[in-house]
Amino acid sequence: MKDAKLVTKSQSNSQTIVSLSNEVKIGGSEIVVIGGPCTVESLSQMDAIASHLKSAPIQALRGGVYKPRTSPYAFQGAGVAGLEILASVRQRHDLPVVTEVMAISQIEEISAYADMLQVGSRNMQNFDLLKALGQASKPILLKRGLAATIEEFVMAAEYIVSHGNPNVVLCERGIRSFDNYTRNVLDLGAVVAIKQISHLPIIVDPSHAAGKRELIADLSRAAIACGADGLIIECHPEPEKSVSDARQALSIEEMAELVRSLEPVAKAIGRKVYGAKRPQLAVA
Amino acid sequence: MKDAKLVTKSQSNSQTIVSLSNEVKIGGSEIVVIGGPCTVESLSQMDAIASHLKSAPIQALRGGVYKPRTSPYAFQGAGVAGLEILASVRQRHDLPVVTEVMAISQIEEISAYADMLQVGSRNMQNFDLLKALGQASKPILLKRGLAATIEEFVMAAEYIVSHGNPNVVLCERGIRSFDNYTRNVLDLGAVVAIKQISHLPIIVDPSHAAGKRELIADLSRAAIACGADGLIIECHPEPEKSVSDARQALSIEEMAELVRSLEPVAKAIGRKVYGAKRPQLAVA
Amino acid sequence: MKDAKLVTKSQSNSQTIVSLSNEVKIGGSEIVVIGGPCTVESLSQMDAIASHLKSAPIQALRGGVYKPRTSPYAFQGAGVAGLEILASVRQRHDLPVVTEVMAISQIEEISAYADMLQVGSRNMQNFDLLKALGQASKPILLKRGLAATIEEFVMAAEYIVSHGNPNVVLCERGIRSFDNYTRNVLDLGAVVAIKQISHLPIIVDPSHAAGKRELIADLSRAAIACGADGLIIECHPEPEKSVSDARQALSIEEMAELVRSLEPVAKAIGRKVYGAKRPQLAVA
Amino acid sequence: MKDAKLVTKSQSNSQTIVSLSNEVKIGGSEIVVIGGPCTVESLSQMDAIASHLKSAPIQALRGGVYKPRTSPYAFQGAGVAGLEILASVRQRHDLPVVTEVMAISQIEEISAYADMLQVGSRNMQNFDLLKALGQASKPILLKRGLAATIEEFVMAAEYIVSHGNPNVVLCERGIRSFDNYTRNVLDLGAVVAIKQISHLPIIVDPSHAAGKRELIADLSRAAIACGADGLIIECHPEPEKSVSDARQALSIEEMAELVRSLEPVAKAIGRKVYGAKRPQLAVA
Repeated sequence: MKDAKLVTKSQSNSQTIVSLSNEVKIGGSEIVVIGGPCTVESLSQMDAIASHLKSAPIQALRGGVYKPRTSPYAFQGAGVAGLEILASVRQRHDLPVVTEVMAISQIEEISAYADMLQVGSRNMQNFDLLKALGQASKPILLKRGLAATIEEFVMAAEYIVSHGNPNVVLCERGIRSFDNYTRNVLDLGAVVAIKQISHLPIIVDPSHAAGKRELIADLSRAAIACGADGLIIECHPEPEKSVSDARQALSIEEMAELVRSLEPVAKAIGRKVYGAKRPQLAVA
Repeated sequence: MKDAKLVTKSQSNSQTIVSLSNEVKIGGSEIVVIGGPCTVESLSQMDAIASHLKSAPIQALRGGVYKPRTSPYAFQGAGVAGLEILASVRQRHDLPVVTEVMAISQIEEISAYADMLQVGSRNMQNFDLLKALGQASKPILLKRGLAATIEEFVMAAEYIVSHGNPNVVLCERGIRSFDNYTRNVLDLGAVVAIKQISHLPIIVDPSHAAGKRELIADLSRAAIACGADGLIIECHPEPEKSVSDARQALSIEEMAELVRSLEPVAKAIGRKVYGAKRPQLAVA
Repeated sequence: MKDAKLVTKSQSNSQTIVSLSNEVKIGGSEIVVIGGPCTVESLSQMDAIASHLKSAPIQALRGGVYKPRTSPYAFQGAGVAGLEILASVRQRHDLPVVTEVMAISQIEEISAYADMLQVGSRNMQNFDLLKALGQASKPILLKRGLAATIEEFVMAAEYIVSHGNPNVVLCERGIRSFDNYTRNVLDLGAVVAIKQISHLPIIVDPSHAAGKRELIADLSRAAIACGADGLIIECHPEPEKSVSDARQALSIEEMAELVRSLEPVAKAIGRKVYGAKRPQLAVA
Repeated sequence: MKDAKLVTKSQSNSQTIVSLSNEVKIGGSEIVVIGGPCTVESLSQMDAIASHLKSAPIQALRGGVYKPRTSPYAFQGAGVAGLEILASVRQRHDLPVVTEVMAISQIEEISAYADMLQVGSRNMQNFDLLKALGQASKPILLKRGLAATIEEFVMAAEYIVSHGNPNVVLCERGIRSFDNYTRNVLDLGAVVAIKQISHLPIIVDPSHAAGKRELIADLSRAAIACGADGLIIECHPEPEKSVSDARQALSIEEMAELVRSLEPVAKAIGRKVYGAKRPQLAVA
């Protein structure tokens, strides 16, 4: 990959490990699961989700407070009120929090509340935002653009790293295609390729890729089997009542069942899932 | 198009006319040609281009001073020095100037020098930038995203208009496809569709669509024949020496020849090209 | 284009002219319009269409009797009965006829009735069919595959020509993309590219590209403006009653109006439309 | 899926099991691996491959004797001589054989030699071939078209089944996209969707999807993890000497290593790999 100086293995052979907290690290042998709703709606909603997911177990909580929406008239997110909810839930349940940053002006504010700043697909090549995030104090979750090539994706990470922030986690979330049966096409070939090219961790978002909840569990297991370092999955206490992306959110029960099913897949390729209750330990 | 309240014909039947100067207006019966290099390199380069293109004739000058580049190590544009070159050439040759804005922080500065602010494809859904441009004092040239749907494209314009700036010109510049023979696929069906849906003007960028200079003239004529309100075309005094996009830049002579060829096509559909020397006038 | 030995200009500089009849030739200075319904339904339908279109004027009649349908339960075409209808209408109105061939076993039969054999998009790389058509006595209309590259398209023609039949006309009909606002994306860049690469004629099918009748006239004019040698357009006496593709068929009146509008566009690029009633002739 | 009458679960809840031989069945709890070269080159080549792969173990042998090639001047396959080689190797090593059928005229001949007839991507909607295969005595391996939707893919199988042959195995092999880093984009979402919609087995071809051998093992494990019923993988004793697709063929050793790695993944989702030597059995 020409021009990639910092994020490729040719530059560094040591796998980058990105810390979300003292306990939760992405890129090591343990697979991380991040869960939560598309949109932060209320404290009670987030509190319910966090308390249930904590025991799934998941390792971090997601929830959007600044939302990129196709229409200017669609709900644009709860903003600061949402950040305060995230902070409250984060502390009460001891769960690191990931949320999207859409503008340079939000970086400082979000950094005060969240443990990881997400760059959405529509901003993957918002180069001024990427440069500014190179100066941020928090790790970055960089989602692949709607039709970004593997090279463009890796080079977007290079923008952040070359501006000073080495803590970047990539996220494959599906690319656009001619078929609308699934919302996007999950490109696991990109995950495999990037694991070979780059020392940065990469996780998979099967929710936005599939757009249909019944496809998510199988795609999650596939992602782990091919080497992804983690998953970020939408879930909601009452999916059908979600203010956005209702069709793709898992229920709390589906989420817990999914997490349980990941452990044997991870084990099959020599890894493990964070915090999985392992039979042998239970026996001992 | 659900949710489009301001930019669709259902809301207003009067065609929007966007003024670049007292003389140059986009969206009326006269077709506008904007030309210039991918990147502002030097005053002598821009002065040579402007003096030649003025008589082509073209109606406005383009030139990038802030450049979105896949690699952080590629030339990022001349910045303020480039803006000063644009301003100097603008005044000397009485040509309106269009240049790209990549960040909210640049809006005020660029507005002081340029007559129209371009939003590049990678920023088509940079919603915070769009909202801020709704407060800008200058017209906006909004390029279609690399894989944006027609609905997303129109709704991006709605962001700008709904935040206060009605002077938006859309620009079709090709979408991504499976074939790399051309750089992108010029989607003239989108131009036709948008002319029917929206009262905003739409122009075509055949240079980034084709990526090969030998395809540009024919695609330009096709764009005019199907109703585009103008063209934005890359040209360079010495295309092979261009610092970027050399393969797709026309020479000054090719540009002049292209402009001459547009007039009969425009006439065939009941329009005319700005400033074209018309036979009947010559006769008189 | 590596491996293209017979269909590229490097092999032959003389433009191929394909004759549909003594009068109608594709690839010369005159632009050909082929019209007709998606599917041959009845003699009265075809007779009505032919009598009206003859004076539009169009130069050849299209109509499917063997239909490639996604579902095995959809109407598969009228078969031989349809061919007999085509033959009857062909003779009565002195109009050459184009219809699709889906199998080697149909070549001889269709050749007895039709003047040109169409290979549909789904069969563009049905190589055994292409080879067999190299032995056919009639010209071939080769439609671009749903996601065929320009190289694959040209090489599919090379299959036919290298097996003995030099009379091949290519047809751009749109390619698949992520946007379903239009049925496909009309790729006029491919038309321009192929005119430069190959000496074979190429026509455009705006009906299948757009999938919406209101987009067809503008796209037709664009196709002529960029150098296409003709058009193939779906029309129907009562579009809303068409057994297939009703949404994209023009009425007879719309077709006549479209044909009239093509002449000035053709003239603008130094060509003319077959049989157009030209003002200067009317004056003389 | 409207119109799908025979291949969907709404019509039949019992999973279809397709037999390649008395021992090898696709669609049951055991995962099948099919291996072999892109092209049958010689008896010694095929004999070497079969003897090595038999102990990998794989359950069936692939090898093309009629080859769909973009260029008419590329090697079109060994034809009948190749079939005789396949038959010889098939008998000597007791391995079922899969090979591609490109034309109706080849069905009878290939059926005399092979255990399964493959329909290539370019022929997925060659409806006359599909109908004829509905009358064939052998099972069909139907590969997804280059840009076929999930619905079109399933309906192509419906053509075969509705014409009398219930023994159809689908094969996901990647779809076209804008990125050429991988040859195609493996669409495992389609595999998951089809497993839910249809009772037909579906296998995955990671070789044509990836186009690069270093990506194949990880994608194979992902395919098994998300529910695919098997894999078809290109391998060659000396990949760099393969007459076609050299870049994507695994060596015999890589193939054996890959097969060994599949067993724990299959076990993780409650399945097993055909003939895998399982540790617990070895211990016992």
